[in-house]
Amino acid sequence: MSALSFEILGRDPGGYARLGRMRLPHGTVDTPVFMPVGTQATVKSLTPEDLVGDVGAQIILGNTYHLMLRPGADVIEKLGGLHRFMAWERPILTDSGGFQVWSLGKLRKIEPHGVWFQSHIDGAKVFLGPKESMDIQRKLGSDIVMAFDECTPYPATEEQALASMRMSMRWAAECREHLPVNDRQALFGIVQGGMYPRLRLESLAEIAAMDFEGIAIGGLSVGEPKPEMMAMLDALAPHLPADKPRYVMGVGTPDDLIEGIDRGIDMFDCVMPTRNARNGTLFTDHGIVHIKQARFAEDARPLMADCGCYTCRHFSRAYLRHLYMAKEILSSRLNTLHNLHYYTALMQRAREALARGNWPEFRDQFLQTYRGGDPEARTHNEELSP
Amino acid sequence: MSALSFEILGRDPGGYARLGRMRLPHGTVDTPVFMPVGTQATVKSLTPEDLVGDVGAQIILGNTYHLMLRPGADVIEKLGGLHRFMAWERPILTDSGGFQVWSLGKLRKIEPHGVWFQSHIDGAKVFLGPKESMDIQRKLGSDIVMAFDECTPYPATEEQALASMRMSMRWAAECREHLPVNDRQALFGIVQGGMYPRLRLESLAEIAAMDFEGIAIGGLSVGEPKPEMMAMLDALAPHLPADKPRYVMGVGTPDDLIEGIDRGIDMFDCVMPTRNARNGTLFTDHGIVHIKQARFAEDARPLMADCGCYTCRHFSRAYLRHLYMAKEILSSRLNTLHNLHYYTALMQRAREALARGNWPEFRDQFLQTYRGGDPEARTHNEELSP
Repeated sequence: MSALSFEILGRDPGGYARLGRMRLPHGTVDTPVFMPVGTQATVKSLTPEDLVGDVGAQIILGNTYHLMLRPGADVIEKLGGLHRFMAWERPILTDSGGFQVWSLGKLRKIEPHGVWFQSHIDGAKVFLGPKESMDIQRKLGSDIVMAFDECTPYPATEEQALASMRMSMRWAAECREHLPVNDRQALFGIVQGGMYPRLRLESLAEIAAMDFEGIAIGGLSVGEPKPEMMAMLDALAPHLPADKPRYVMGVGTPDDLIEGIDRGIDMFDCVMPTRNARNGTLFTDHGIVHIKQARFAEDARPLMADCGCYTCRHFSRAYLRHLYMAKEILSSRLNTLHNLHYYTALMQRAREALARGNWPEFRDQFLQTYRGGDPEARTHNEELSP
Repeated sequence: MSALSFEILGRDPGGYARLGRMRLPHGTVDTPVFMPVGTQATVKSLTPEDLVGDVGAQIILGNTYHLMLRPGADVIEKLGGLHRFMAWERPILTDSGGFQVWSLGKLRKIEPHGVWFQSHIDGAKVFLGPKESMDIQRKLGSDIVMAFDECTPYPATEEQALASMRMSMRWAAECREHLPVNDRQALFGIVQGGMYPRLRLESLAEIAAMDFEGIAIGGLSVGEPKPEMMAMLDALAPHLPADKPRYVMGVGTPDDLIEGIDRGIDMFDCVMPTRNARNGTLFTDHGIVHIKQARFAEDARPLMADCGCYTCRHFSRAYLRHLYMAKEILSSRLNTLHNLHYYTALMQRAREALARGNWPEFRDQFLQTYRGGDPEARTHNEELSP
């Protein structure tokens, strides 16, 4: 029996957007969903209590690469698995480590069954491939395991993208072989193929034919222009298996999420709300706000008037600016609480619109407001790096 | 009418220790009490919710020096005062700025009515004296205002200590003059006199004769050996006014607090639990623990078995070590929660012992255990710098 069951609860009749519910060993996840990133067994600055109570996170993401190096998968297994280690009782998705290894650039060497790389912590040589990644994620005990793949660089020639995609497809099969269907952990396959629709569709067909519990789309949001990313999702949307959850990895801004949902995507993750929070960049319905700006120095208003997060319910823009200028730890925390709450609340609003049947209206109004900006918020999303 | 009323609820019949209750504009404070330090309008890494719910803090301390420079007393006043600015509804004590200015060393120049100094933020020349300090603390709106004094350096000759003490006494009178008794803010005078009992007693007599709502003892824990500090408290104890709260500034370790209570002290503050937390040094009944030590790498036990803090209720030593090694923000926060909870719970235990009438037994047993150490905890308190 599979560790994942997925139910479609509603659809936008005129498009691909859908409302769903995923059941996993550690709980239920309503989709569309945003997954906060908890790289090193912590969503930076927050406790599990914050994530459940203030943020309303349903599922979080852990990074295999970081955890295998520190504190090590064996240590986490010995301590009862990642859930117990970090005291998080709801579902966890772990990535495969492939993306981080790929990010190391020259520090890695690709072989048929995996990649040699040097640890960024102590320079030790480490080998990671499909088999190793499955073993590590099994020790971590995540609810959703990601297949080990290569993230095709951008830009890449069609030939490069093809070779890279073929390797990822071989590795995907090896992953499923090493982690057969079981009732403890679901496994998602990852579609690659660079920016070539033909390769993407070929990859999707292969992944869909394997017995994965979910379909991920990798290799996007890696530096390509946004229209190119959206065009790729447009090309895939009609061909995505209807009965499986779909996950676009590493995406994105609030408007990216809405555009993604509109193209049939159910799951998202991104460091943007957490990383930008620490840099003093906050999300609102009217775009982003740089809290360090002098105009907030005596601004007694909450960051976002109608926001229900702990930060907006208690503190002024002036206080948030003060904490940021004074480099206080609480700055990172209050900003992270707001940004993650903003993302999860946005997904909640999207689910409500889908349930009510007025998705197109919600989508259009959100995008217009968000991209329109107003005197209180900068709107240059281009400034944000993922 | 005064902003402070103080009631003695119990006494150790054989000594100076006492149980009390202080009423202030923002609430009631049971003494003995430890006041967490919230230098820049935040107790580093914690929210007011943490401080009330998890730590059980009754009153916190704010630093005039830091707040006057950033964001500025006028800004805080405009935003409704320090309580509202930082969303803290319980009492606040603000220091006078004197200690921080004194810490600047060569960057200051003393004049009859105050001190010129250079801002550590932008190098601007700023003047701070009794009048200025009272004006700033009035704008901050703290429940307890501290008189502006000079912290006599250590070591100092008797002549130097005398001149410094005389100046502090003149300034104390100026402070009371600029901030007469009122129903919004209480004012504490500060006893100085270096390490000379004769000067200390002279200073105490002067402070006691003025109309202050509380008596503070300053200029301790500034580098002198511990026995010298305790000898000074011993010398003062029989002469402290019985009806006013007594506060030793900047003290100290858990055993210092117990020793201080034993010498009739009601109030304490120190950066030690918060600063040490960020350095991975944690307090337990058996002394201090350096969480970075390799022996904790796979230790599944909570830091302190019988501790009720959020950290000990949810996380293992191994997890705390991991967060520290990975330089995660959550490390500072979970460690701070534990250390401050430890301090406030220790004061709670002291109050209970005083209420039960077995203070001497509690004191002796605590000191023996704390200083005795055990295999699980280092006990070299000397390593800690305040």
